[in-house]
Amino acid sequence: MLEARLGETLLLKKIVEALKEIISQGTLDCSDTGFQLQSMDNSHVSLVALCLQRDCFEKFRCDRNVSLGLDLKSLAKVLKCTNSDDTVTISASDNPSKVLLNFNSKESERSAEYELKLLNLEEDHLGIPDTDYACTILMPSTEFAHICRDMAMFSETVTIACSKQAVKFSANGDLGSANIKLSEGGKMNVSIQVEDQLVQTFAGRYLNTFTKATPLADRVKICLAAEVPLLVEYPIEDFGYIRYYLAPKVDDVDV
Amino acid sequence: MLEARLGETLLLKKIVEALKEIISQGTLDCSDTGFQLQSMDNSHVSLVALCLQRDCFEKFRCDRNVSLGLDLKSLAKVLKCTNSDDTVTISASDNPSKVLLNFNSKESERSAEYELKLLNLEEDHLGIPDTDYACTILMPSTEFAHICRDMAMFSETVTIACSKQAVKFSANGDLGSANIKLSEGGKMNVSIQVEDQLVQTFAGRYLNTFTKATPLADRVKICLAAEVPLLVEYPIEDFGYIRYYLAPKVDDVDV
Amino acid sequence: MLEARLGETLLLKKIVEALKEIISQGTLDCSDTGFQLQSMDNSHVSLVALCLQRDCFEKFRCDRNVSLGLDLKSLAKVLKCTNSDDTVTISASDNPSKVLLNFNSKESERSAEYELKLLNLEEDHLGIPDTDYACTILMPSTEFAHICRDMAMFSETVTIACSKQAVKFSANGDLGSANIKLSEGGKMNVSIQVEDQLVQTFAGRYLNTFTKATPLADRVKICLAAEVPLLVEYPIEDFGYIRYYLAPKVDDVDV
Repeated sequence: MLEARLGETLLLKKIVEALKEIISQGTLDCSDTGFQLQSMDNSHVSLVALCLQRDCFEKFRCDRNVSLGLDLKSLAKVLKCTNSDDTVTISASDNPSKVLLNFNSKESERSAEYELKLLNLEEDHLGIPDTDYACTILMPSTEFAHICRDMAMFSETVTIACSKQAVKFSANGDLGSANIKLSEGGKMNVSIQVEDQLVQTFAGRYLNTFTKATPLADRVKICLAAEVPLLVEYPIEDFGYIRYYLAPKVDDVDV
Repeated sequence: MLEARLGETLLLKKIVEALKEIISQGTLDCSDTGFQLQSMDNSHVSLVALCLQRDCFEKFRCDRNVSLGLDLKSLAKVLKCTNSDDTVTISASDNPSKVLLNFNSKESERSAEYELKLLNLEEDHLGIPDTDYACTILMPSTEFAHICRDMAMFSETVTIACSKQAVKFSANGDLGSANIKLSEGGKMNVSIQVEDQLVQTFAGRYLNTFTKATPLADRVKICLAAEVPLLVEYPIEDFGYIRYYLAPKVDDVDV
Repeated sequence: MLEARLGETLLLKKIVEALKEIISQGTLDCSDTGFQLQSMDNSHVSLVALCLQRDCFEKFRCDRNVSLGLDLKSLAKVLKCTNSDDTVTISASDNPSKVLLNFNSKESERSAEYELKLLNLEEDHLGIPDTDYACTILMPSTEFAHICRDMAMFSETVTIACSKQAVKFSANGDLGSANIKLSEGGKMNVSIQVEDQLVQTFAGRYLNTFTKATPLADRVKICLAAEVPLLVEYPIEDFGYIRYYLAPKVDDVDV
């Protein structure tokens, strides 16, 4: 039997909002250590990984490992109905065909219970190797979201150039070009660690969907290294995270 | 001659918003006692009845009974133009082809006058018999609106189960199921009077249009009885109301 | 070389919003005295004229006259990306194929630079003769915007009747009619100067696009005279303006 209670529905809302644009369905793997979800996006280009350790929960019990195949659009619909400050209890049997969501207000006069049918999804879990990243940037998550949205106006691709003390985002298109440069420190307290300078280009629309996780964390970590996927990480309180991976574009070679 | 002045245009706006989703045209019957309007909705399933006693008005004069055939969408358009805290004076001649709406601000430098053409509508007035309801629920109107909207996500029909001390709203569909239970008292001060326990099912989309009246009243009264239409009533200040009637669904019988 | 710095990007945003609905492209003429733009609207009915004297700018340098052919939709897109309280520096070479926009926050850690391609537009500049207007109205710009929007609901044409102490806006259509009368003085401090009483009719949709300039100024000046175009003027701080011109409709004569 699985029973996991979050102190605030708002956290679950933010997580589902962060996932539902990138994957429409996903399997939540529940074990004694907490919740895990890993999935390629709908177009099989980027990868998202969610981790919620049991310490994220007010109450957590998971007798046997269970996998919950969730339709994220449906879950988002249910969550739209709920008050953000209600507690939410997620429960399922050991071999479940449905998941139960119980929402309770601090006041006891209202209880809401939703039952969602589970999906039978086949998913291959990719092993994600540990990587020593050449560049690691820490910046306000809202600023990163802002930049990704702005770049999308100019081009489908975004170039990130990371050097000591500064990171530059650029986009070039029919309209003209855009360049935004952030320096270390300042009011935004941008942190840039660079072992090797790096210039990489990415498909902007994936970066934009990653930023749906912005409400989860004040700051975002962006990690780059030559020939490995970019990592964009939003911490979830102290005991979890949502990570997005996206491979850089390989330049077309003129023949 | 008819001349009726409301102290605040806002009240008229709320009334028209409450009506215009359910009926596109309606006849306002004006007499010495005030205003009345009764009409089936556009699909002839539910019934709406409006009553505004003369005491709702700052000034009221109606020499002869007149019927004003109103296009509610047009009236709503006119009201969009007006300041909510202006006074509004509704006037018409004894045998009118148009209605005049005068809006005046407390300051005197601006006056706005709108003339709307009247429609010639044929309407049968149904006698609504007095009913002893088995269950009467009083609850915050916003909570009722919230529940109706949530249920609509799951199913086209909503089941209301009323027992002593608790009322349960349920919906069941492809997505899964939703159950919201309200108990008596609490912060929401829900009141439930039950003579006979009752379970009835209704078409959710009508309940949802009824809740357009939510801004008119903090609390809504819901009355049910076996084999008679549900009554949903929003009081309008101390001297009026808007009432909606909707027959319960008859269960399909398997043959 | 051209280099012009505005203390607040917000002012540029408001100007572009005021222009972009009425002209999609326009030539900004830059000289030592400041910026000028004059253009017929897309349908060649109304005329818009912008003037920004060099004193509007924190810093202004223009060595040689240059004309910047701007795509206003693109410029509006770029401005959407920027913080309203950043400074903006507009620069171009003496014979430019592109214009550079640099946005800097008071904090120095973020700099954004956008390059927009210029268009090669052919434009005839019309001489606008000085006119002695018979009626000059000064009123809150939001009230004028409100009236224009309301009139549009009733009819495609708006009649302005100006007499001593009062101006009346009227529209007449299938729905009915609307009349809004403003008197001199009052809370809105309407000012009406009339040499000759006047009644003129205008195409409402142009008046409505003129009101996109509302955020630029608290008060708008409306000037009318027999057989000359209406002038609607929004001052821009102390050193500029945006002016719109629209010819009155000539009544159809029954033959």
